[in-house]
This record gives sequence, C-alpha cells and structure tokens, in this order.
Amino acid sequence: MKPVICISGISGSGKTTLVEKLIPELIARGYRVASVKHDAHRFEIDKEGKDSWRHKQAGSKIVVLASPEKVAVIRDLDRDMGIDELVDRYIEDVDIVVAEGFKGALNPKIEVWRKAAGEAPVLLTDPHLLAVATDDKETELPVPRIDIDDVKGVADLVEEKVLGSAGRDGGEKVCLYVNGKRIPMKDFVQDFVAGAVLGMAASLKGTEGPIRELSLKIENQE
Amino acid sequence: MKPVICISGISGSGKTTLVEKLIPELIARGYRVASVKHDAHRFEIDKEGKDSWRHKQAGSKIVVLASPEKVAVIRDLDRDMGIDELVDRYIEDVDIVVAEGFKGALNPKIEVWRKAAGEAPVLLTDPHLLAVATDDKETELPVPRIDIDDVKGVADLVEEKVLGSAGRDGGEKVCLYVNGKRIPMKDFVQDFVAGAVLGMAASLKGTEGPIRELSLKIENQE
Repeated sequence: MKPVICISGISGSGKTTLVEKLIPELIARGYRVASVKHDAHRFEIDKEGKDSWRHKQAGSKIVVLASPEKVAVIRDLDRDMGIDELVDRYIEDVDIVVAEGFKGALNPKIEVWRKAAGEAPVLLTDPHLLAVATDDKETELPVPRIDIDDVKGVADLVEEKVLGSAGRDGGEKVCLYVNGKRIPMKDFVQDFVAGAVLGMAASLKGTEGPIRELSLKIENQE
Repeated sequence: MKPVICISGISGSGKTTLVEKLIPELIARGYRVASVKHDAHRFEIDKEGKDSWRHKQAGSKIVVLASPEKVAVIRDLDRDMGIDELVDRYIEDVDIVVAEGFKGALNPKIEVWRKAAGEAPVLLTDPHLLAVATDDKETELPVPRIDIDDVKGVADLVEEKVLGSAGRDGGEKVCLYVNGKRIPMKDFVQDFVAGAVLGMAASLKGTEGPIRELSLKIENQE
C-alpha cells in the first residue's frame, strides 16, 4: 500500500492551504507526491462550454483530455470511493499520497483546526489521528500539537510516522479487478499471483532491471 | 483493441459539434461510449484558484478529485501519447471510443469539413479516412460524403465500418506495463500470459461469470 496522509478537518479550517504548503515541502525532501481531494458535493472540474465539458454533457462515460504535457480523465462513478480504492486505481509511481478530506478514512491523519473556524477539533477520538495542526496554543490535546504554519513540523511528522513505517512491511501489493469489481485475495494468494505474473514479465524482452511496478490489462472478447 | 473512430479536421471545422451529437446517437443505439479530445496546446482543465488547481500548482504529479458521482484524475505527461495508448491506459468498460482530433492516427476516421472554415478536406490521401462530413455538395471526393448535420448517417457508418468489424478479430487484448514502460508481446505470448492470468482469476472466490475485462496492478517493494 502506498503511504497516505489525510489532512482532515471541518470545512473552512484551512486544509487546502496546509496541503499546498506540504506538497512542495515533501517534494523538496525528495519524495514524489500525488494528492487526492474529496468533495462531498458535485464538483465542476471542467468549465462549462469547454470541449471536455461538451463531451461529458453529451453522455460520455469517460472523457479523456490529452496534451503533450498532461492528461485529464473524467469518469462517472456510481458510488463514493474510499481513499484506498482511489489510490489503488488511479495513482502509481509516487512515494506518498496527500489526501485532503476523508475524515472517516482508516489512514493516518492530521486534523487542521483554526479557532476562528471551529470551537474544537472534531477528530480527537479517532485512533488514526497523529496530530492537530492549529493556531491554538492553550487547549489541551490528547495528540501532539503542531503550529498551523509550521509546515516543516508537519512534514517531519509525515516522514516519521507515515513514510518511516511504509517501507517496513515490504513485499508485494496486488490489486485485481475483474469486470470492474475488486477481487480480494488472501496474502498467500497475492504472493502466488504476484510470483507467477512477475516471473512471466521478467522473462519478456523489454523488461529491464527489477520490477517495481507492473500493470496488466486484459480484454477478453468471446 | 477497443473500437475507435476519430473525428478529425482542421481547427474550426466543427469537430466538437459533430462529436456532441454523435455520442448521444451511439448511446441511443445501446453502446457505452467514451471520448477523447486531443489538444496540442496547454489546456486548463481545472479552474485557477480551485482546490484541484492549487494541488497541481503545488507540485503533485497526479491530482485525483473525487465525489460520489465522478472522479477526475490529472496527470503530468512527459510526451504526447497516441490515441491507442490513451485508450489502453485510461479507458475501460465501454463499447466504442469517439476521438476528437488525432489527424495522424492510424484509426478509422471521418473528416469534418465546412466550406466556410477551409478550402478543401485535408485528409483525402489518408488511407484510414472513411468519409467526409461536410456542408459541401459539389466537390468530388474519393470517399463517401455525409451531410454535416446527418448524425444518423455518421452513426450508421460507425456501426458498419468500426463497430461491425470490431467483434470479428475476437480473442484477447493484453496490455502490460512494467515500471511505467509498455512491454510489447507477440500474439502467442499474449495468449500465454492471458491464459495463465485469466485462469488464476477464474479460480478465485469473488469472480463471477465470464471474464470480459481484467486489470491487475502489482507493487513490488524489495
């Protein structure tokens, strides 16, 4: 599993502001970063009237917008995906994922709390809460307090508690989807499937060096 | 390979307008549709100042924006991807892909040509050109002419020439990426890999019915 840190808190607490400082701090420390933002409401990713918006309005299930520099993919969902599934499906080749929101996730999280925005932190009973990033200096807290502007302090904590432990479990992570549905596998089945597929892939012309990441898609038309 | 129809032509010819009529026409005929738009220039998929834009500006390689209804994924690229690679990587579970642009692609295409926008069609020597959709009624053309407003005529052609032939080759399509690099495979190797992986997947608890589509991701931390 890729390391994930959730920056959570109530609306207006300053989550995005902390995220946009934390990302470059982690990059400066040598990590490749992806980020995820959860929005409980509809979001307008594409501008009304723009071509991608026109494609989506016309009924495309998936719209891909590509330039030489970036690609954007907009997909219909039929349910709210959790952070782990979003990371599994859409993120690869990074060292850490910074997730904004996801208060209910079972991932390590830091709550952002500004006194002007809310009377008290809301995640103090969450066992996954690592710290509160706040402008408050008085309220007693059951977890460490970090100054809301101390982005280095937040990055230190992420390195120690999230990135530091990530390497420890090692081994492979195998995600299998059949006809769009996630197929869970016990550890020894994961090992078996990974061993077979990594073995086949390693023997193919074109594969160089150790395999860090492999993705395989099969379409089966009968 | 998923069936792809390219709607191509010079800038201002009316490609998006045809695409946004063709998509609902294909959906009305029972197909699940995805679409791809190529933009040679930078595009602004997210609005300046919005949270996803702030994440990207902060340096995230991948930004995922999720709601219960849709998910948008914005990724950095280091090169211009062709339509086939875009389809392989980002599109699944649809019957046809409508691609706007991609004049140079080796896929079946329809050129949109309005006399007011350009003196003559520009793809007449392209062996993949199926027809010209145009408001012109006089110019002699080496391929069939379809009235630019005749979206049923365009959909008929797509059904006959693109969807009609798609089922014929049958068999599996296998796409393998190792460490982010596409590994090409000869047909018999594809068959071998597909057979092994489909066989393993079919035996797993949770897999139901015939496997139409399978995707597998392995992260290998050593």
